[in-house]
Amino acid sequence: MDVPAGLKGVAVADTTIGSVRGGEGFFHYRQYDATELARQRSLEEIWYLLLEERLPTPVELNDFVGGLAEARRLPDGFGGVLDAIAARKPSFAGGLVAAIPLLAPFDPTVDIDAAARRRDAVAVAAAAPTVLAGLHRRMIGLEPVEPDPELSHAANWLLMLSGEVPTPAQERAVETYLAATIDHGFNNSTFTARTITSSGADVGGAMAGAVAALSGPLHGGAPGRVFTMLDEIGDPANTDDWVQRRLDGGEVIMGFGHAVYRADDPRSLLLREAAESFGGPLVERAILIEARILELLRAHKPEATIVTNVEYYASLVLHLAGLTPELFTPTFTVSRVIGWTAHILEQAANNKIIRPAANYVGPAAPAPVPAN
Amino acid sequence: MDVPAGLKGVAVADTTIGSVRGGEGFFHYRQYDATELARQRSLEEIWYLLLEERLPTPVELNDFVGGLAEARRLPDGFGGVLDAIAARKPSFAGGLVAAIPLLAPFDPTVDIDAAARRRDAVAVAAAAPTVLAGLHRRMIGLEPVEPDPELSHAANWLLMLSGEVPTPAQERAVETYLAATIDHGFNNSTFTARTITSSGADVGGAMAGAVAALSGPLHGGAPGRVFTMLDEIGDPANTDDWVQRRLDGGEVIMGFGHAVYRADDPRSLLLREAAESFGGPLVERAILIEARILELLRAHKPEATIVTNVEYYASLVLHLAGLTPELFTPTFTVSRVIGWTAHILEQAANNKIIRPAANYVGPAAPAPVPAN
Repeated sequence: MDVPAGLKGVAVADTTIGSVRGGEGFFHYRQYDATELARQRSLEEIWYLLLEERLPTPVELNDFVGGLAEARRLPDGFGGVLDAIAARKPSFAGGLVAAIPLLAPFDPTVDIDAAARRRDAVAVAAAAPTVLAGLHRRMIGLEPVEPDPELSHAANWLLMLSGEVPTPAQERAVETYLAATIDHGFNNSTFTARTITSSGADVGGAMAGAVAALSGPLHGGAPGRVFTMLDEIGDPANTDDWVQRRLDGGEVIMGFGHAVYRADDPRSLLLREAAESFGGPLVERAILIEARILELLRAHKPEATIVTNVEYYASLVLHLAGLTPELFTPTFTVSRVIGWTAHILEQAANNKIIRPAANYVGPAAPAPVPAN
Repeated sequence: MDVPAGLKGVAVADTTIGSVRGGEGFFHYRQYDATELARQRSLEEIWYLLLEERLPTPVELNDFVGGLAEARRLPDGFGGVLDAIAARKPSFAGGLVAAIPLLAPFDPTVDIDAAARRRDAVAVAAAAPTVLAGLHRRMIGLEPVEPDPELSHAANWLLMLSGEVPTPAQERAVETYLAATIDHGFNNSTFTARTITSSGADVGGAMAGAVAALSGPLHGGAPGRVFTMLDEIGDPANTDDWVQRRLDGGEVIMGFGHAVYRADDPRSLLLREAAESFGGPLVERAILIEARILELLRAHKPEATIVTNVEYYASLVLHLAGLTPELFTPTFTVSRVIGWTAHILEQAANNKIIRPAANYVGPAAPAPVPAN
């Protein structure tokens, strides 16, 4: 059986985690509109929803938040591991891939049951920001900052990076971004997590592979570059010239267009609101530049559906929250690890090993092995 | 578009690396019978064939072997990294996943071209045995052993594990095993390596994910358990009782049956020859036990095609070469990393991101988000 390249449009599984309805500009986590959840609920509530298939009661949420606070602290002696990793100067993704299998060492002689998988999944996802922030600070020569059990997951991420408790506006902006990017269909890294899990591998292995997949520039690698674009254009009056030069050079304009959305990307609308809540000249500029780029791109390719994608306002929101561009992709990782945990648990609960086939198109076999 | 669960039988790509023709009991690397290659050529020659699509000239082979000797040595200072990893007591797979992204730190600001990918792929595959042996010796409290540039890849693996230069028979047995298990269709770990690569991620990330996939008990995890079975049965006269107890308990008999082969697994025939070249009472017992198990299983399930799979004689060959069962899966990893390099390079050379879809089967969305 042959299928489209890249498995585009090929339904490889049933899921109740959510889906993306690109034609409607809509995506959901479980049965709820994902951007409505991001507007109305905390990241921790949405995290619980993804794991447990329903929103928590106040008591359940309290327990869950307490568990996250525990899991966010790295195991004793793990600082030395991060020192050794950071000394090799890996990328953020490479450093996190290296750290994950060491966070919850896996005993292959013991069968992993659903409870162990859930515990490991929450442990890895909760500790990911601590690892990433710890690597960041070590690589720029600063002491690591411990998580604060009184703060939210979003506020802890900012605290552990900068050493400062964020303002409520910064915390909420990052929380909105994180909540809106937890999950988004069977993208490449999510599918990687499920494929590895399907072999019976442990949660750490599936997470490590997914982090590696997300690091690819065709997948998770672009938000930093959108911010560079805003910086280069500067005055909105320069937009026409800047865009024309890119189009003349056959280059892609970052932050516009999406593989799936044929209506506005709902994440871009949500993050535009989040940016507007900060206000200020940079946000005003970005809104003017967005509008003009859309006009130019639509005039350039009238037959295409051009929409602003998540990366455009994400870059602005993360900047306003105090993050530098090299931290944008790590921040995406902090949210997406949460989504992978739900996919890993769903795959393991109803598993069949993922093992496709291929068409051999080389010279006819067997040819005689030449004498040596 | 819906497809069979686990993508079984679904051709997801074109390849010239090889294929498995299960009905014929045949598999090949490039256009050559893989087991004939294993009989007639060195591991290094076959490795070159997989990378370069043709067997090397003597000069090319000499250069390639020299490059492997270089790449087998870990970078300066890497011993401290392995100390830190080993101190966390990971599984072999977990330790290797942790080490890989630190072997060839990846600069995400530089585009990876084909030459860089090939260099990184060979570097990771060549260093994998050094990492695994280094972790093994550290975890049992022994000093690591440096690779010897004068020895083959197979002999180095045994040397770095035991500290002793293997006998020619041991070296050749392990080399045969490694050569016969480099590649075998689009299995779960190979597909993982290609899926991660398709995002544009670096070789280290793809390799790390594939190692994690191979660690799953549904995929790479069984050869150690076959040897335990031979040990438990002991006298071939006990075979009937032992098998009957397993069948009564609904348990699988390790070493028999394969997802693809409907004729003898050619690897099992090759490795049986390799075992026979050692001779001795253990090999004689194993041959008798194999024959009896096949009779019993065929009588138990007359409608099924029961064949001996690669794991049965692999366990024996690796044991005769001096390896303990916990080192069987790491040895499989040492060969399979070579196959992944070819798949990673092939995927990157003609890439489209692998990003499938899924069927949402949860409650109808959107449901209103409950008030908090």
